[in-house]
Amino acid sequence: MYGKIYIIGIGPGSPDHMTPAARKALASSDVIIGFSLYVSFVREEFPEKKYEISGMQNELARARRAIDLADQGMTVAVISSGDAGIYGIAAPTLEMMQRRGSNVEVEIVPGISALSSAASLLGSPLTNDFAVISMSDLLTPLEVVMKRAEIFAKSDIVTVIYNPRGSRFPDNLRKAIDIFAKYRDPNTVVGIVRNAYREGQSVKITKLSEIVPEEIDMLTTVIVGNSETFVYRDMMATRRGYSKKYSIDA
Amino acid sequence: MYGKIYIIGIGPGSPDHMTPAARKALASSDVIIGFSLYVSFVREEFPEKKYEISGMQNELARARRAIDLADQGMTVAVISSGDAGIYGIAAPTLEMMQRRGSNVEVEIVPGISALSSAASLLGSPLTNDFAVISMSDLLTPLEVVMKRAEIFAKSDIVTVIYNPRGSRFPDNLRKAIDIFAKYRDPNTVVGIVRNAYREGQSVKITKLSEIVPEEIDMLTTVIVGNSETFVYRDMMATRRGYSKKYSIDA
Repeated sequence: MYGKIYIIGIGPGSPDHMTPAARKALASSDVIIGFSLYVSFVREEFPEKKYEISGMQNELARARRAIDLADQGMTVAVISSGDAGIYGIAAPTLEMMQRRGSNVEVEIVPGISALSSAASLLGSPLTNDFAVISMSDLLTPLEVVMKRAEIFAKSDIVTVIYNPRGSRFPDNLRKAIDIFAKYRDPNTVVGIVRNAYREGQSVKITKLSEIVPEEIDMLTTVIVGNSETFVYRDMMATRRGYSKKYSIDA
Repeated sequence: MYGKIYIIGIGPGSPDHMTPAARKALASSDVIIGFSLYVSFVREEFPEKKYEISGMQNELARARRAIDLADQGMTVAVISSGDAGIYGIAAPTLEMMQRRGSNVEVEIVPGISALSSAASLLGSPLTNDFAVISMSDLLTPLEVVMKRAEIFAKSDIVTVIYNPRGSRFPDNLRKAIDIFAKYRDPNTVVGIVRNAYREGQSVKITKLSEIVPEEIDMLTTVIVGNSETFVYRDMMATRRGYSKKYSIDA
């Protein structure tokens, strides 16, 4: 008898932003597998569960372990913060299942993504078309990362930057910002959100020319606005064209 | 005494995918303003609330009304399905507040976005960098929409298509698909999700050369994979490079 794997996005880490679907999946699991920081976000609510905690870089080991346990008939939760499908544990798990020809049941539970969390704290920067890019070149070649940054910078696309700066890639964010600076106005609005909806939350709105990459770390999401992004009070938002199309008189 | 505006992403429409934060905001509101379909997703749970329902195209009227009611001291919820910050009601509301110089308190509550809902039902297509584009040219000029489609098609970026086909823009999806077909392999995996996590849900995985735009409507999200997107069992997923970097032996 086979078990089941739930791949769960637990959201930013605050209980208020975890869905009932994620809670039900966690409640029905025998084991919860995840990176230590993510486990710390659910442990208090599910203290009776068995946990298997692993380091940041061990996605494949976690996937392999989940399949092994499910093969033994267990219900296994594999968790990521945010949405597990966006730079998270979902794809490595499915990739490993394919490699092993696994037929174990799998269900993916969506979570509030870092892009939604960050955007909601900033205002509404993602109103219109946008792109999402990670600064990590551990799995994607650096030239591909920078080529994509250039494409988005050039074409005035609002860009969400995940994994902006890590100890193994300390300089990529600065490189990307230099590329954006080549194509965009120095006053382009940029939002910087660290630890969205959890302890130590900080929200900053600045401009392209004033970003200090050295102040940014892996727990941060950066959103670079476009030529339609404005600031009102302490919020940033991107116009979608209402003011062009309709009279927007108050 | 001023009131408050909550701008709330209620998620796909199933109670299981609405966050506690969204529920609390709805519970504490005097009035809930929204497009009729979205209101139908919350009305059962909050039957005692006052509702103001408006048509799809009246974003600015809804925003104006929310500010008026908050100015009178009421707590007002303005809702969108998915995440209100992604092609939703958040930006028009902030834009209208700016126009009116409104100082009313505002809080934006993130929701499970259509991109996360669709991706989770398909597998894990958004593993790596991706872009999001709407086919509607009601507020964005058609040439900009198609230029962006071309940029994403050309650069092998996984692309999420919102508002793929409406009665006022019946042909844009076909135009965009033709552009993708110019640059991408005809076998590129495409996922099509209609009514994610609600009545009438359908999930289909097909390939670029076999999409039938005429079968697609406004309640659908389309995800065009890239050269790293594969199909396993009934799921699609995009590799992030694990198999290149590490041994992915089972």
